[in-house]
Amino acid sequence: MGAAPEDAGIDALIELMARLPGLGPRSARRAVLMMLKRRGQVMAPLAQAMAQVALNARDCQICGNISTTEICPICQDPARATREICVVEDVADLWALERAGVFRGRYHVLGGTLSALDGLGPDELGIPRLARRVTDEGIAEVILALNATVDGQTTAHYIADALAGTEAQISTLAQGVPVGGELDYLDDGTLGAALRARRRI
Amino acid sequence: MGAAPEDAGIDALIELMARLPGLGPRSARRAVLMMLKRRGQVMAPLAQAMAQVALNARDCQICGNISTTEICPICQDPARATREICVVEDVADLWALERAGVFRGRYHVLGGTLSALDGLGPDELGIPRLARRVTDEGIAEVILALNATVDGQTTAHYIADALAGTEAQISTLAQGVPVGGELDYLDDGTLGAALRARRRI
Ligand SMILES: [Zn+2]
Ligand SMILES: [Zn+2]
Repeated sequence: MGAAPEDAGIDALIELMARLPGLGPRSARRAVLMMLKRRGQVMAPLAQAMAQVALNARDCQICGNISTTEICPICQDPARATREICVVEDVADLWALERAGVFRGRYHVLGGTLSALDGLGPDELGIPRLARRVTDEGIAEVILALNATVDGQTTAHYIADALAGTEAQISTLAQGVPVGGELDYLDDGTLGAALRARRRI
Repeated sequence: MGAAPEDAGIDALIELMARLPGLGPRSARRAVLMMLKRRGQVMAPLAQAMAQVALNARDCQICGNISTTEICPICQDPARATREICVVEDVADLWALERAGVFRGRYHVLGGTLSALDGLGPDELGIPRLARRVTDEGIAEVILALNATVDGQTTAHYIADALAGTEAQISTLAQGVPVGGELDYLDDGTLGAALRARRRI
């Protein structure tokens, strides 16, 4: 017996919804039932918004952020050409920093940390591309906002070495990031304090 | 500042997702981010399944269940023409009974309880339609599986009175339903016990 009795379309929808983080089978059923009752006001607009984003979303060729435009809104914004680049592991970290509203420059999204096991080397993380941006855009400061984990810090040191020959000052988040903590889980105040108290490395 | 910085399409999607039960702004962001990273494997199929269901879902004209077919699969299934109708308040209750697998007849979904305040009278709950089914289909038993709340029990008594002139035996869930409890929250064992121990009224 499926999630919704005998209706293949509704069953399939519940199963797809249940794969989303934070939703199990039970909450997926409740969400789908609510949508079924409000199909015009909730389900149809949600399906359309999702289809549009699925069609248009892409990785920004400059910074690795995900957006629905060829170049992401942050890279497009002339007010953000502050000669500062903040390097993050994941788009989730970029979102967290943007929600905190503590950084007004641009980003480089690595998409992970260096890992021989996962086949993630400097090329996969776009580190040569980052180095070219630092030179071509005359970047004054690169802030390494990686997670305070062993992998994050190993990768940060690798990037600091790779950028050692450029004009850019390299700094890293310092005060306020708990050991072993992940940026995505920090409150705005902690993130802001860590950014303001960044230190050179 | 929006949910996802400056990207109107992604922002709108997060806001729509956050309206679903069980998802707040935080979990909606996480769900959308996961979909963005797996747009081909997760987001596109989910958007398509949702659009299909939004387009095809409808209330079954016989029983009030929601399905993607004109007549719902339960009403279509000849094996379920058991001359028993189970009356429930909500599609969620029908789903709960189906998951428990304890009832093999057909349903009547009221879509609420009698409420002058909400403008829900016998017509809105389809009670005349239920009465016609009981006569036309030669129904032997009507099981009133309403919530054990004041509104549920008031409505159950109204339906029992409305069907008093028919040949059908009227019964109600008894043992195992906690006072004030809602069917949708009961475990399968409790639901099964309550159904087996149903009593005439
Ligand atoms: Zn960008
Ligand atoms: Zn039906």
